[in-house]
Amino acid sequence: MLRLLTRISDGMEDRLIETRRDLHRFPELGWTEFRTASLVARRLADLDWEVRLGREVHREESRMGVPAPDVLAAAWERARDQGGDPQMLARLKGGGTGVVGTLRAGEGPTVALRFDMDALPIRESQSPEHRPSREGFASQNPGVMHACGHDGHTAVGLGIAEVLGRVKEHLHGTVRLIFQPAEEGVRGAKSMVGAGLADDVDYLMGSHLFPDWALGETICGLGGYAATEKFDAVLKGAPAHAGANPQDGKNALLAAATAVLNLFAIPRHEDGATRINVGRLEAGSGRNVVPAEARLMIETRGANSDLSQYMYAHALRILETSAAMYGCKLEILPMGAAPSADSDPALSKRAQEVARRVGLYRYRPPAPNGGSEDLTYFMRRVQEHGGQAVSIGFGAGLLQAGESVLRAHTDDFDFDERVLRLMVRLLAALTLDLMNRG
Amino acid sequence: MLRLLTRISDGMEDRLIETRRDLHRFPELGWTEFRTASLVARRLADLDWEVRLGREVHREESRMGVPAPDVLAAAWERARDQGGDPQMLARLKGGGTGVVGTLRAGEGPTVALRFDMDALPIRESQSPEHRPSREGFASQNPGVMHACGHDGHTAVGLGIAEVLGRVKEHLHGTVRLIFQPAEEGVRGAKSMVGAGLADDVDYLMGSHLFPDWALGETICGLGGYAATEKFDAVLKGAPAHAGANPQDGKNALLAAATAVLNLFAIPRHEDGATRINVGRLEAGSGRNVVPAEARLMIETRGANSDLSQYMYAHALRILETSAAMYGCKLEILPMGAAPSADSDPALSKRAQEVARRVGLYRYRPPAPNGGSEDLTYFMRRVQEHGGQAVSIGFGAGLLQAGESVLRAHTDDFDFDERVLRLMVRLLAALTLDLMNRG
Amino acid sequence: MLRLLTRISDGMEDRLIETRRDLHRFPELGWTEFRTASLVARRLADLDWEVRLGREVHREESRMGVPAPDVLAAAWERARDQGGDPQMLARLKGGGTGVVGTLRAGEGPTVALRFDMDALPIRESQSPEHRPSREGFASQNPGVMHACGHDGHTAVGLGIAEVLGRVKEHLHGTVRLIFQPAEEGVRGAKSMVGAGLADDVDYLMGSHLFPDWALGETICGLGGYAATEKFDAVLKGAPAHAGANPQDGKNALLAAATAVLNLFAIPRHEDGATRINVGRLEAGSGRNVVPAEARLMIETRGANSDLSQYMYAHALRILETSAAMYGCKLEILPMGAAPSADSDPALSKRAQEVARRVGLYRYRPPAPNGGSEDLTYFMRRVQEHGGQAVSIGFGAGLLQAGESVLRAHTDDFDFDERVLRLMVRLLAALTLDLMNRG
Amino acid sequence: MLRLLTRISDGMEDRLIETRRDLHRFPELGWTEFRTASLVARRLADLDWEVRLGREVHREESRMGVPAPDVLAAAWERARDQGGDPQMLARLKGGGTGVVGTLRAGEGPTVALRFDMDALPIRESQSPEHRPSREGFASQNPGVMHACGHDGHTAVGLGIAEVLGRVKEHLHGTVRLIFQPAEEGVRGAKSMVGAGLADDVDYLMGSHLFPDWALGETICGLGGYAATEKFDAVLKGAPAHAGANPQDGKNALLAAATAVLNLFAIPRHEDGATRINVGRLEAGSGRNVVPAEARLMIETRGANSDLSQYMYAHALRILETSAAMYGCKLEILPMGAAPSADSDPALSKRAQEVARRVGLYRYRPPAPNGGSEDLTYFMRRVQEHGGQAVSIGFGAGLLQAGESVLRAHTDDFDFDERVLRLMVRLLAALTLDLMNRG
Repeated sequence: MLRLLTRISDGMEDRLIETRRDLHRFPELGWTEFRTASLVARRLADLDWEVRLGREVHREESRMGVPAPDVLAAAWERARDQGGDPQMLARLKGGGTGVVGTLRAGEGPTVALRFDMDALPIRESQSPEHRPSREGFASQNPGVMHACGHDGHTAVGLGIAEVLGRVKEHLHGTVRLIFQPAEEGVRGAKSMVGAGLADDVDYLMGSHLFPDWALGETICGLGGYAATEKFDAVLKGAPAHAGANPQDGKNALLAAATAVLNLFAIPRHEDGATRINVGRLEAGSGRNVVPAEARLMIETRGANSDLSQYMYAHALRILETSAAMYGCKLEILPMGAAPSADSDPALSKRAQEVARRVGLYRYRPPAPNGGSEDLTYFMRRVQEHGGQAVSIGFGAGLLQAGESVLRAHTDDFDFDERVLRLMVRLLAALTLDLMNRG
Repeated sequence: MLRLLTRISDGMEDRLIETRRDLHRFPELGWTEFRTASLVARRLADLDWEVRLGREVHREESRMGVPAPDVLAAAWERARDQGGDPQMLARLKGGGTGVVGTLRAGEGPTVALRFDMDALPIRESQSPEHRPSREGFASQNPGVMHACGHDGHTAVGLGIAEVLGRVKEHLHGTVRLIFQPAEEGVRGAKSMVGAGLADDVDYLMGSHLFPDWALGETICGLGGYAATEKFDAVLKGAPAHAGANPQDGKNALLAAATAVLNLFAIPRHEDGATRINVGRLEAGSGRNVVPAEARLMIETRGANSDLSQYMYAHALRILETSAAMYGCKLEILPMGAAPSADSDPALSKRAQEVARRVGLYRYRPPAPNGGSEDLTYFMRRVQEHGGQAVSIGFGAGLLQAGESVLRAHTDDFDFDERVLRLMVRLLAALTLDLMNRG
Repeated sequence: MLRLLTRISDGMEDRLIETRRDLHRFPELGWTEFRTASLVARRLADLDWEVRLGREVHREESRMGVPAPDVLAAAWERARDQGGDPQMLARLKGGGTGVVGTLRAGEGPTVALRFDMDALPIRESQSPEHRPSREGFASQNPGVMHACGHDGHTAVGLGIAEVLGRVKEHLHGTVRLIFQPAEEGVRGAKSMVGAGLADDVDYLMGSHLFPDWALGETICGLGGYAATEKFDAVLKGAPAHAGANPQDGKNALLAAATAVLNLFAIPRHEDGATRINVGRLEAGSGRNVVPAEARLMIETRGANSDLSQYMYAHALRILETSAAMYGCKLEILPMGAAPSADSDPALSKRAQEVARRVGLYRYRPPAPNGGSEDLTYFMRRVQEHGGQAVSIGFGAGLLQAGESVLRAHTDDFDFDERVLRLMVRLLAALTLDLMNRG
Repeated sequence: MLRLLTRISDGMEDRLIETRRDLHRFPELGWTEFRTASLVARRLADLDWEVRLGREVHREESRMGVPAPDVLAAAWERARDQGGDPQMLARLKGGGTGVVGTLRAGEGPTVALRFDMDALPIRESQSPEHRPSREGFASQNPGVMHACGHDGHTAVGLGIAEVLGRVKEHLHGTVRLIFQPAEEGVRGAKSMVGAGLADDVDYLMGSHLFPDWALGETICGLGGYAATEKFDAVLKGAPAHAGANPQDGKNALLAAATAVLNLFAIPRHEDGATRINVGRLEAGSGRNVVPAEARLMIETRGANSDLSQYMYAHALRILETSAAMYGCKLEILPMGAAPSADSDPALSKRAQEVARRVGLYRYRPPAPNGGSEDLTYFMRRVQEHGGQAVSIGFGAGLLQAGESVLRAHTDDFDFDERVLRLMVRLLAALTLDLMNRG
């Protein structure tokens, strides 16, 4: 069986790469994955999976960090213009952009696989040393880029849909493929979990590719995900003519600059790693007007929830006092959040065993990496109900010596596309393993 | 004669107000005054003035702070959609947005009057206490507002074109009406002066209305305009994932925040007033990415050019060292400038005398106000060639007791529209005075 | 008569210089002028002036910025060791360090002349280019220096005591010579005015030498003294081990650094010159302890009292919010203050006329210089009671071309000592003029 | 044997406490432990140990962070006045303040025990809730306090000298008791190691008491000591009169405040814990003088040497650019350093076994705590030469429920003095164990 799966996976490599490159060309930010979601839904439907999408798979009030209506409308139209599936696009109006495919195969456990679909607000490198640019599949949406591999994840999800369809007679139970929007900013998972998609899951798999690990390395049981709070802070002061009567202004930019410096200076904590970032600041209107408004996009993280809350509480005090220093009003807008979570040892061990059997290996033990990932909402819910969850990392680095490592969230991010078939191979094999004897 | 002019001016009050309100409804930022300029040019042509516009009246390489091509293109299309004159719009493609009208009346001095046309990036108040909103002529272009009275100035210029046309037989010499774009940010005058428009001028008049002076007060001989430098600073660092590997980022926002605080802290100078403003700061991309880029819009001012240069030199050092602190690259982009200048006492005295004769008065002596105004480029050029220049301020406040003063560059800026006919009255009378006996 | 005075003044030049250099050698900070005051009092007594000193001439509760008792005690002992007058030193224990000499000459106006005696906390330059070092009269009190000319002022006051004594038969009225401590920091005047020393004064003269004006220039009628507030801010947080548990600290230094940057960044004011300085900051205890305390020495100034209050109010808010940002307690301690004041035009004119008659001249009109001076307390009180006050500036620069100007409050401050006899000459002449015909 | 040792140790409890309280009363900062060292040397001599001290036990050029000569001289005199041993004090002039006692007992291994003697610049709490104050043994040296337990350590070292003397006949080899100065600031160890004191050591023991662990808990094998760099940064600008000509100053305080904020904001590092502290800042001279000089006392730390160097390199860049921002010169003065180090597992295990046998126990495994300790210089040298080292922690908390934990480096630090005899008991027992069979 595993040999068969391996053969099927390897045989679809060209198609996986083609799908990934198509998605790479048309990256979409969180909650605007209209083209991506419509094509995912279309493909699942074509493969005879039951398809739910949009508002059917989200709890509306738990969606965080949703863009303004005009941004959503413009993105929807761009999706239509860039080859989104018209029928599915119609179903995506006015709700989230998640897609869920279901394959029912009689009695047996419910196995869920979750993939994320969104891109990042990064302008892709146009250097000829950057393969997507050199080979012509770089982003065509200015300022947006798949710089975290979600294009690959989505392609893998569709590959698994095909593989599992072809071995359906060997499956006992239900498979649920969850294509989640807005993982960047940890904004999307909460609303899908809120819609009940993890409530009945026995086994959950999450996966991520890492171009800074060697191709072929596979670590089953990632954990130590950092807890995080994402929020915007809006400072409102008063404008004034900067030349004529500067003393009349309430300078929101000075308040913001004061806050920024002090936010980064929040003391380290003896209990473990903490993080803070002000990822974006926008302040002021015209050059000769004392800035009357500032908006900061902030996130805090901690190795555990207490540490993230320590950072968050300090951040609030700094923002409040910075605002007061300049007579500004302060508004805090929650934009995303994720708890910490860990993989279940039993399922992790089983996954690593399957990995070994399909030719993947592990060089080193899993270690916490300081990153956040809202897969943790799914993991926690599944674990709360007695299920098991595992997060699997796949090396996608280039094997040649001397190559520099490519890191996520940079404008020259790239990965070895051979990882796609390896991901399909293992995730399908583990699913089969769980549903054959499960 | 003066009585006649007064009668004509007063008789056109309704039209002046109508024109001003039309312009108020469709405000346009500097270098995008396509609708305004096209309508000005159309009206001048209809009144039989010779009309030059666009690239004919600008020295291209001296235009400062010109928006990006796509912004210009969008503004041009909006102008077309909002009732701009099609024929004149065609002539405004691909160059500046200034308009110059000429009236030739035989031998005699060349008299120039300069008016500015652009609006400010301020969102107009929608409060019912704000008259433009209450009476339905508030800005229809979101985020743009005539908050400095240039709508009134432009209407006055057109009123004068009409008045002078009607008394043409009393004029000896040449009248040049200069409608300048991009006065805000002191970006437009240099390129019009560079096109030679002040080289042959014997008498130059500039004018501005002030809602914080009483209606009827008129000060001939404003001066002490502050020298100023306007520039953008762009900091370029390196992105990194803020949770996973924050140490790899070169944080352009921290560099910018450090610069902002220190820019405002440049020491006061014993020689006189100095100013600095960072009117806008934009930094970073996504929330979880260490900000790799920041852009600051900055201006310095000084009571004289040395003081402005003192501020500018300090600002450069602060920006350079802030960039170096975070390993960022720094680029400085000049965006505007104006020298200091003063009115000629002789012409000022003559203007004040004419003002008295047409029923306007003066409460107090002129005083420097700390503001900048690129009229000074015209003034300096005219004075260098032996001509005389005067800048005239007109009170446009509300006479009732208890009214609060409205200040320029605020979102509830307004003025008493009766000032429009007073401005036409005096400026036309002074022109006639200069060209009758000149 | 004036010729006589001139001859006497010129004849005492060597003694004036000797006195000045002796004082220069043993500079004393504000409220610790024990040696200086004791020698002044001794000399006055020897010249047969009535002498009051110490607590007799201060209102104790109005003394500002008085050092700690142990500092005073140590200074008193040093004064004894450095040749202070033992008898007068005994009278100086436990009170202020002011000295007042009185000469009674029958009926007539009361004329007061005020001189300041204190030095600055500056380490004097030891460069051979610095004349006091080269010629062996540099400060012998480490870290303290007469860098503002008060040594010269005090010598002049004693010279006048001698001159006036010699022409006593020509005087009608009362002369009061006021030797004030603690002018630096504007701490001393208030308490002497509070003791009634200005209540009955008809004419008050203050004087200052300026090495950045040419020797011989004399400006009668200085004014535009800046109003000022001097105060200390003490921030108290909590210590913690910086390595083990940094999160437990309340970092008073971070609060102070935040305050410092924002204090200097208080917006300029359209109404005129403002100043702020944090002249000293001391924070923290050990290197590995989170700083639990910080003390800032601050002053604000303004061209008038409203402007100084504008700065002061902003400063308080910045300090309060900076403290709150780090959970610190804030204490504000008033340390000095002076109002703004101007010379009386009538007395100024009379003084300038006398100056002309004794061979001194004026190059330019008086201009405000942004400095503060607590002579203003005396001036205001005298003016409130119907008297007149004048502040006179004496040029003490070197006449040779190419010499660089020496500025006050620098470690190489120096002046042309010939100014001393010129000061005696004019101040004595003006006193005689006022008391001869007054 | 162990029972005997235990009896002896327990029997000397009163004397241990008395010694500790005497030292607590007269705390001395690093390199000024003249009284402490002289009494230690006296006691060792009285117990018939060979005694070396002062320059005999330090490599002069490796002493870091030594106070100025006048500070040393004053401390020496105070030590004499506060009961230091006159003869030993004489030997301590002009060198370090370390003391080494040697006991020779024939052939066998060399066993070294190291104790630290210095106090901290903290003003001790005078609250009656603080036992040293309540019971009358609080610090009599203002601003200095034994807030880290070194008074206890020193008392323990003397206790061991007595115990080992009494069991000398059971020992085979050489015992070296090293009393080290200036552990705070990690300034003293390098110079003692540089003098060769660790070169021939077979077994090294370091020890520390911890009032936040329960009395009786003993962890043998502490490690993970943070690497650290200690240094001062001196900024030199230019003074100016803050009111008259503020623009002429080069403000070292603004440079320092900018540095402080950015130093604390150095990004966290993915590889592990980092720390930075600016423990003290002193800037400026007088209130009305633009601050011309600033001194910062700084330390960086890292979980390993690379991380400490990462912090240090960033700190240097921030200081250099902050200085350049204000035209200041920068000087960096190294003041202390310590590498990271770990206990040897074999010796740790043996120590824990002995601990168990003398009635001490262990609740939990050792964990790195982020602190630095220059014991690591001794440990590394011993390990380099093939010897073994162990660092042992002793709980000294109060056992009653509800007591709040007392942390090191706070002004109310205290510990359960019963720990003293437990420390003597184990350290003597381990020495005996090593030298009996070693």
